[in-house]
Amino acid sequence: MSDEAAAFVPGHVTGFFSAHPDEDPSVAGSRGAGIALSHGVNVRVGRGDDVRNDTDTDTGGPDVTLNGEPIDVAPVAAVLDDLDAADARVVAETPLPLGAGFGVSGAMALGAAYAANAAYDRHRSENELVELAHAAEVEAGTGLGDVVAQARGGLPIRLEPGAPGHGRLDGIPASPRVEYVSFGSVSTEEVLSGDTRALTAAGERALSDLRAEPTTDRLVELSRRFAREADLLTDRVDDAVEAVRAEGGDAAMAMLGDTVFAFGDDLSAAGYDPEVCSVHPTGATLRPPDVSRFER
Amino acid sequence: MSDEAAAFVPGHVTGFFSAHPDEDPSVAGSRGAGIALSHGVNVRVGRGDDVRNDTDTDTGGPDVTLNGEPIDVAPVAAVLDDLDAADARVVAETPLPLGAGFGVSGAMALGAAYAANAAYDRHRSENELVELAHAAEVEAGTGLGDVVAQARGGLPIRLEPGAPGHGRLDGIPASPRVEYVSFGSVSTEEVLSGDTRALTAAGERALSDLRAEPTTDRLVELSRRFAREADLLTDRVDDAVEAVRAEGGDAAMAMLGDTVFAFGDDLSAAGYDPEVCSVHPTGATLRPPDVSRFER
Repeated sequence: MSDEAAAFVPGHVTGFFSAHPDEDPSVAGSRGAGIALSHGVNVRVGRGDDVRNDTDTDTGGPDVTLNGEPIDVAPVAAVLDDLDAADARVVAETPLPLGAGFGVSGAMALGAAYAANAAYDRHRSENELVELAHAAEVEAGTGLGDVVAQARGGLPIRLEPGAPGHGRLDGIPASPRVEYVSFGSVSTEEVLSGDTRALTAAGERALSDLRAEPTTDRLVELSRRFAREADLLTDRVDDAVEAVRAEGGDAAMAMLGDTVFAFGDDLSAAGYDPEVCSVHPTGATLRPPDVSRFER
Repeated sequence: MSDEAAAFVPGHVTGFFSAHPDEDPSVAGSRGAGIALSHGVNVRVGRGDDVRNDTDTDTGGPDVTLNGEPIDVAPVAAVLDDLDAADARVVAETPLPLGAGFGVSGAMALGAAYAANAAYDRHRSENELVELAHAAEVEAGTGLGDVVAQARGGLPIRLEPGAPGHGRLDGIPASPRVEYVSFGSVSTEEVLSGDTRALTAAGERALSDLRAEPTTDRLVELSRRFAREADLLTDRVDDAVEAVRAEGGDAAMAMLGDTVFAFGDDLSAAGYDPEVCSVHPTGATLRPPDVSRFER
């Protein structure tokens, strides 16, 4: 047994979705489709005093940092609590922006679940850890579908909402290059707590169309259509999409962030200077022991 | 659209299983648990005359080679037929031995499905491709659970038998080093076509015990017990297991091959000179276009 462990969780951009609330957070979730990204979150967990952060926290909650800064992430605290690991120190690092539609909070929750399970020797299965993180994310109102998609990897299609045992996933078989530009945040909580009926109708239409032709071209096209139909398109994403289309490419908006994404080189061909990554074919993964060593 | 495509499919060692036949090959399958290996099968598919093999085949069937040698693999032919790609040329390469419990035939079927879907632009989803390969493997009698495990990656626990939509999977959250030594073949067809009642009872017991404690230590221990209870243990694997246990380690038999596997360095510590790989956390993956170029 090791006193510390680390996990990598891919970022996840949702292109379109429908919201399916339920009293049981394991049953609640979303249908939709998106992209697991090779840009993701590394999460290291150490037991009690075994790991030193550079910061002192007196909040009584778990000691969590993201890119070196102390941060409160409700789903992470909930996951650690469920695993009887509330004294854990959690060190998360990511190149992805927070609140911009990349599933960073879901990744932190899922990575904390995998790493704490290993560091505390809790003997949970992968499905059990995914369910913990999914339920924590749903209850915090920070996301509905990122966790199950991040546990799968690839280009996940969320056929049925919910945690493993309830939800059901498929995927688009492809390995494209991904470009994205993030202009800022959109509040997931605000959108999800409002009237989601029009959004959900548009999301269901897009899902049905994608299932008929599960390709990356269709994913971008249907995601672009969804953002407009659901009235979620920001001005800056709208401008970027139009610029990309003027060059013969296609692009869409990340749900939910002021973020535009495209496959291949469609954003750079339109004059943008995007971040570049690839589809991450792997779901959340515990790092092998030699990689999970803390660099002190 | 590209005229050629390539996929990588991890090898898969089953540690224990129960057989669940059904008239519908998508519903048939096995429960059990195993290991997806970083040693796997690269499968390249080219349309019609676009790819040259070094060999001439006049069989009328698809042109398939494994490590440069022409080979008939019934599930591969069935998959290509289903995808209306019977004129495909399939080039498979692997360091794994055939018929020794590594799921090479399942990997070839699944890899051919992914690569042919891309090369022929067939627009199937990942679940649809997995179902094709699973059904083809079941109908050929060459395997019951490898394909769904190879589509998932990691340390798959097969909770319910069958293709996606029927079957259900979980996983052990771990990333250990894997060692194996293969002494030769065991006929999967012979075992599966015989009386599988004792085997299935032993497999169900092992699954129940693994679910209570889903760790790599338990996987090896329960797999070792299963091989003995199911009366499948070969003399050479028996000897190797005893040698490993005498050094304080643990090892088990690959289902179905005259092959012994262990985690960490348990086989080398007992004086064996094993092949060494790692758990492959990723399921079957279409290679990015630049990697899938055929080297002619």
